[in-house]
Amino acid sequence: MSAFDGRVVRDPTVKTERIPDDGCSAPTSERAVRLALSCVVEGGEPAVSEVATASGPVAAWDQVVAGRFGDGLAERASHLDLDRVLERAARSRARFVVPGDQEWPERLGDLRFCDEVQRRGGVPFGLWLRGPAHLAQLAERSVAIVGSRAATPYGTAVATDLAAELAEHGFTVISGGAYGIDTAAHQGALAVTGPTVAVLANGVDVGYPQGNAKLFDWVAEHGLIVSELAPGTHPSRVRFLARNRLIAALGLGTVVVEAALRSGARNTASWALGCGRVLMAVPGSVESAMSGATHLMIRNGQAVLVTSVAEVLELVSESGQQLIPFQQGPTRATDDLDPVRLAVYEAVPARRRVGAGEIALAAGVSMPTALAQLSALEVAGLVVVDEVGWRAVVSR
Amino acid sequence: MSAFDGRVVRDPTVKTERIPDDGCSAPTSERAVRLALSCVVEGGEPAVSEVATASGPVAAWDQVVAGRFGDGLAERASHLDLDRVLERAARSRARFVVPGDQEWPERLGDLRFCDEVQRRGGVPFGLWLRGPAHLAQLAERSVAIVGSRAATPYGTAVATDLAAELAEHGFTVISGGAYGIDTAAHQGALAVTGPTVAVLANGVDVGYPQGNAKLFDWVAEHGLIVSELAPGTHPSRVRFLARNRLIAALGLGTVVVEAALRSGARNTASWALGCGRVLMAVPGSVESAMSGATHLMIRNGQAVLVTSVAEVLELVSESGQQLIPFQQGPTRATDDLDPVRLAVYEAVPARRRVGAGEIALAAGVSMPTALAQLSALEVAGLVVVDEVGWRAVVSR
Repeated sequence: MSAFDGRVVRDPTVKTERIPDDGCSAPTSERAVRLALSCVVEGGEPAVSEVATASGPVAAWDQVVAGRFGDGLAERASHLDLDRVLERAARSRARFVVPGDQEWPERLGDLRFCDEVQRRGGVPFGLWLRGPAHLAQLAERSVAIVGSRAATPYGTAVATDLAAELAEHGFTVISGGAYGIDTAAHQGALAVTGPTVAVLANGVDVGYPQGNAKLFDWVAEHGLIVSELAPGTHPSRVRFLARNRLIAALGLGTVVVEAALRSGARNTASWALGCGRVLMAVPGSVESAMSGATHLMIRNGQAVLVTSVAEVLELVSESGQQLIPFQQGPTRATDDLDPVRLAVYEAVPARRRVGAGEIALAAGVSMPTALAQLSALEVAGLVVVDEVGWRAVVSR
Repeated sequence: MSAFDGRVVRDPTVKTERIPDDGCSAPTSERAVRLALSCVVEGGEPAVSEVATASGPVAAWDQVVAGRFGDGLAERASHLDLDRVLERAARSRARFVVPGDQEWPERLGDLRFCDEVQRRGGVPFGLWLRGPAHLAQLAERSVAIVGSRAATPYGTAVATDLAAELAEHGFTVISGGAYGIDTAAHQGALAVTGPTVAVLANGVDVGYPQGNAKLFDWVAEHGLIVSELAPGTHPSRVRFLARNRLIAALGLGTVVVEAALRSGARNTASWALGCGRVLMAVPGSVESAMSGATHLMIRNGQAVLVTSVAEVLELVSESGQQLIPFQQGPTRATDDLDPVRLAVYEAVPARRRVGAGEIALAAGVSMPTALAQLSALEVAGLVVVDEVGWRAVVSR
């Protein structure tokens, strides 16, 4: 009796009691159904997701079991060994949260409204979590940092610094746990013991890529590992595409640090736009292929160019908050001079003293004008005068 | 009788005959007056320029002489030694062109309509030219490349390459003859024996900066040295600001390659926008202060990010010309697969052969669906089949 078949939908019994429960408000049966859907249906499968959103997960499950979405899915549903899934989950201390739970990030609901044509859409049935943090709290002030696996040292440094500074400002860094930019982002946050969330294209207990096993341990210890796929699930290309929508939807905005024209980060970027999130991109050398996609997105007006944490904060903060000061570089005392005064000032030598007549001639103004302007310039400390004549103050 | 006083305006005589004439259509007297104005009035002086535009240069000159713009200007006019100016011009083989001449670039007329509040505005009274080229012809297809004097090796390389490639595409490179980006731009064009125009903030016979003397010789030999200031005039800060408007107005567009937040290139950039020109900026490292202004202009939406000559050409060419192909990086055979077909494809292993049933289960589709999709994938060359089963083609 380990197979999870259609019956539990109408008669949730022992099995569903064993699902880790962290004070949820959703009915137990719906939670069980969502869990079963997460095991059987590919993440972001649009058809099932649509039914679940419109008529509820129980209806969706009924239709899966009835073969409405194909015999393949129905067969998978009939083969589901829920005990095994729950055992795996328990071993890795994974918990399952669903819409309505306190820990559920409401922002994911925006996936319903995405008008981008995407391969894998929809609100996830639920999320598997591993780690001590509270997902909804972490997501509230969060930024996704994504980019190429084949990042350059430049991109890696930018991602690390940006993540560390975002974490220092109390923002959660969300990424995908891949090599390159993702790893740099997680590490940057962890370096300042800031919270970070890794959203994976496999089960939360599957360490992919293997080289990041230690990173995943750290994230699971200080932040959260997140996946819509059941524990034990291995990654695939469609799962990466589906996963990307969760990264984009969880954050207030997405920063693409480095991405070649051919990069999964572009998929995440279009999800961010589809969900109405701020899309940001970091510029780089025009000679670097790894900045090809960021430059293209900026050029096309899809992404806002960002160069610093201050610029990111301004974009993801509420209107009027975290505004950065107007950038104009160091100012000079002569900046605000009107044309006539500037012309007079320019006519005053710095290394010798000259009479007002010579200055008037050189500046092309009348003698009274020259004298009036020179007085004003003297008050401003830009010129000095003695019995020999006028001289510009050297700091010019 | 070497002083150029008000009389010549009404009675253009010997003096004006000696002005180098290259088949102009403007009346000789107006030409003489414009020449005199260029010697007496600072470049871009807005008040005189406005009168000259509205009522003609003769009226402007009359008002200068009458002290309408201050005694200083009137005094300068009365001291003007036109013979000396013409001698200097002859020595450096400088010629003077005015609106209406074949060589006059009509585009400069846009300076009349600039709605930017600028310190030094207006259409120049005329232009002094040194070099064998035809200004109007050069300007017709031209791009200004500007930036910081303190350019980095990155900026210098980008400016050189961009200029060389623009020249190879038959475009004239316009810049200001300064160290750094300007020099790199001129040299890039000269390197492919392309035409280049240096617009200076001093007389066309004054080699400033001195270290670029050889560069100016090359430019004067293969392109043009241009200035609205009389031969012999030395540079000043206001003259640099006035000069910038000519660089911006002459080109179809302006590319800022590298500029710190505090940079004269920002002045040129706002002139380009004021004249309705395309403003372009090259991105760089977020850690480079020399990309501070380019990033800011892109971020603010003032400048379009450009990374290649193709992108520049698209922006400065007539609508629909020089379009660059849609950039998406190398394509894969699986790019256009719909979700179901992609899921089936993903379920086919590359290293062993499996049955259609196993594939259908893994992909979550029915057996008939799996078989139909596998057939299509086989036609596309993405999978192969034999009596043992299906296998993905290795190039995946």
